[in-house]
Amino acid sequence: MGNIENKDIDVKDVSFINNIRSIAVIGASKKRDYFFLRNHQYMFKGNIYAVHPNAEEIPNFPKENIYASILDIPEAIEFAFIAIPAKKVLEVMDECVEKGVKLVTVFTSEFSDAGTEKGVELEKELLRRAKNKVRILGPNGLGLFYPKIGVAWRPGFPSIRGNIGFIAQSGGICNIAIYSSIELGINFSKVFSFGNGADLDFVDLLSFLIEDPETEIILCYLEGIKEGRINTLKAILRNNTKPIIVLKGGKSERGAVAAKTHTASISGDNKIWKNFFLQYNIIEVDSLEQLLHAARLIDCYGVFKLRSLAIISISGGYGVVLADLIETLGLEVPPFSPEMQSEISKKFFMAGTSPNNPLDFAAQFFAIDIVKEVIDLVLSDNIIDGLVIDLPGFYLTLPPRIKDPEGFFNIFFDSLALGHKHNKPLILVTQHLTRPKPINEFLTKVKENKVPIFGDPQEFLPLLSKISHFNEKLDKKKSK
Amino acid sequence: MGNIENKDIDVKDVSFINNIRSIAVIGASKKRDYFFLRNHQYMFKGNIYAVHPNAEEIPNFPKENIYASILDIPEAIEFAFIAIPAKKVLEVMDECVEKGVKLVTVFTSEFSDAGTEKGVELEKELLRRAKNKVRILGPNGLGLFYPKIGVAWRPGFPSIRGNIGFIAQSGGICNIAIYSSIELGINFSKVFSFGNGADLDFVDLLSFLIEDPETEIILCYLEGIKEGRINTLKAILRNNTKPIIVLKGGKSERGAVAAKTHTASISGDNKIWKNFFLQYNIIEVDSLEQLLHAARLIDCYGVFKLRSLAIISISGGYGVVLADLIETLGLEVPPFSPEMQSEISKKFFMAGTSPNNPLDFAAQFFAIDIVKEVIDLVLSDNIIDGLVIDLPGFYLTLPPRIKDPEGFFNIFFDSLALGHKHNKPLILVTQHLTRPKPINEFLTKVKENKVPIFGDPQEFLPLLSKISHFNEKLDKKKSK
Repeated sequence: MGNIENKDIDVKDVSFINNIRSIAVIGASKKRDYFFLRNHQYMFKGNIYAVHPNAEEIPNFPKENIYASILDIPEAIEFAFIAIPAKKVLEVMDECVEKGVKLVTVFTSEFSDAGTEKGVELEKELLRRAKNKVRILGPNGLGLFYPKIGVAWRPGFPSIRGNIGFIAQSGGICNIAIYSSIELGINFSKVFSFGNGADLDFVDLLSFLIEDPETEIILCYLEGIKEGRINTLKAILRNNTKPIIVLKGGKSERGAVAAKTHTASISGDNKIWKNFFLQYNIIEVDSLEQLLHAARLIDCYGVFKLRSLAIISISGGYGVVLADLIETLGLEVPPFSPEMQSEISKKFFMAGTSPNNPLDFAAQFFAIDIVKEVIDLVLSDNIIDGLVIDLPGFYLTLPPRIKDPEGFFNIFFDSLALGHKHNKPLILVTQHLTRPKPINEFLTKVKENKVPIFGDPQEFLPLLSKISHFNEKLDKKKSK
Repeated sequence: MGNIENKDIDVKDVSFINNIRSIAVIGASKKRDYFFLRNHQYMFKGNIYAVHPNAEEIPNFPKENIYASILDIPEAIEFAFIAIPAKKVLEVMDECVEKGVKLVTVFTSEFSDAGTEKGVELEKELLRRAKNKVRILGPNGLGLFYPKIGVAWRPGFPSIRGNIGFIAQSGGICNIAIYSSIELGINFSKVFSFGNGADLDFVDLLSFLIEDPETEIILCYLEGIKEGRINTLKAILRNNTKPIIVLKGGKSERGAVAAKTHTASISGDNKIWKNFFLQYNIIEVDSLEQLLHAARLIDCYGVFKLRSLAIISISGGYGVVLADLIETLGLEVPPFSPEMQSEISKKFFMAGTSPNNPLDFAAQFFAIDIVKEVIDLVLSDNIIDGLVIDLPGFYLTLPPRIKDPEGFFNIFFDSLALGHKHNKPLILVTQHLTRPKPINEFLTKVKENKVPIFGDPQEFLPLLSKISHFNEKLDKKKSK
């Protein structure tokens, strides 16, 4: 890395994004019921304007906020969303420059993504017209999702501001991630769908998220980067300490071909990327689901160090399988110390089983106050770095045979929060069966309390070592 | 295998299970509101009797079906469920022998599972008292789930008779599997939880399921088998053609220790088991979830042969990732023939993308009649063995912007059924987000039509090759 100088850090500044106050949607289309206008309207907290050449009335939208040109709007506009035919985009860009707009999303496609020379030329001209004064997300991008101020490109996006940044060319991948985040209990700080990346590209946006005080965890779906950007990428990663998790698209032969037709990305040599991620301490995952689950684990427990796990199971057989899966992945399921075993024995009647790791509660789960004490005990053991609890899904589908359900669920909630008390990951595995509403509400509360719940252990087990390795390498880097 | 003779086939006959007409629950306990009696009562289709020394009244149970001893019951009893204190089990066993009962489940624990000499002796004595006339599931087992006649040991078990047999010592594993089956859309023929396996053991029950005309797919959770049973196991597998899928518990060091305390099983050398499974064409999986998902795939499409997959995605990025995952697993995502590409182009406007595999529909999903035609086309291609369709979960959470939802969902249903028309696996991937009720009902209908739906591609992708290899080896065996 010695050959990387600060002069290599050639990134465009977009830090003004944190101060967007007024926005305009240019090209509100009646045919789609003003789709993108509605989408940006429903949660935006500042002033929103519709721009349309006819400036016609729009149902449920203030008449005084409709203008024929962005130049007619009486206040400053920081961000504009452009969804108009390609041939009109250049003219609108001129107006945006004149108006002093700082950022635009160009949703319109048929630029370089069309794969034609004409499209490529149009994209170059668009960039020239922006005069380095207006920053562009796109063309062929969905742009910016920023829940803190309420910028969203689709209906039903969550309004809770979070700590996770996400960069992807593909808007579809962003949509899946954003809608899934609600279910997973994670929240985004900012999401960028930058499409063709004519102006702002992967490196610019990554640089921004690394510096962004509102972002703690960075997720990327990356098909490839532009030629000549690798040194800048290396330079911005040099002092990074935030966890960056990458899903690399186009790793296989057919995947690479598909990536090329998808976003004209050159996926590059998979081995080179693998080594790059390793060298720059970037966590690589294999699926969008893993990308989101990894973010979720870090969001709940930070970048933990974890070599050993305790298992508490309600089904002995499931505990055996969990131990097998964990040890196969190179993590340990160490036996409890004799003192710990003796302590556990005092609390529980362990018929035909032993008070050891993995610990089988069998049907004693409903003695929840004792369960809580045992979880607390297990997590206080120095040789235990984390805890996986298996609760068969059907325990949460049938009405429990208990006298005081409210009291039971209060203690259960506190038991699951003990990972936070001990600063060790505690993860609940329970099959996603159809559950009664009160149980779903309980599990939502648990998720909001930053305790991750998984339906299948293979969803998260491979991620534990990846996060752990990131942390260990970060420590080494810091101690240098 | 030449050294295996028919004399090695030392298995106990339990084929009478298919003809159980009357059952007795011995030891109905008022304290737990007659838990096991209620459980066996709610779906059993024949006569059910409660046996209790005081023969007291039981709310909502016919008084005339309560007896102080099984010997007092005026008709023949084929099956008895015994849940009484260990010290009384021997006496009750004598009565069962006298009564001519064919099968009992001994739920009572504290036999060999207690790990004491006394417990081991008690179990031996129990076996002696059964006089080889009464077959035993247990002790320490939950016994038999047989939906066809309505034998069930827990409330809320599904009543639909199926084609999947399951054998496990662990009752907890069986419970998870049975309750999950409802959500997964699979159905069991018979499930056996045989506990300590004092009488009927893994080999006996596997032999029964291999011969059982009601069972087409066999699932096993296996921690180990008894000494001296390996030759019989080999003998019964010799001519087997049914797919057997095994989850082996105790493969790791701690897992093996846990299996020993769980069911006193000797897990044995993992490598020897791996080779054994390979040699006898048994499909080995790594988790309970994989066990159930593999059954589901076979239940939907039989034991298919699959080397190549087509991908149809609604998000181009997701299609790229699917291609990567599939090729990493050694399967192919072959390009479509030029003719096929030309056919697809006629149907779809493919802006900035190509009509190739993986095929990106982008936002054209709602043109469902064309989607259906393209699926039909793709599956008719000889080089394509199966199809994975990615439908982002949020498409099914928001009200679709379509004029005729009923018509749309009818065509979508037919589109998803096209795998059956072409006799090639068609699998839908869509994130499990919270969905409106009509959508859940639609997806249930799809599952009932034997089209598998997964939330995460890594749940099923590794299973495709495993099933395929089974089929190829079976073919070789048949052609010998």
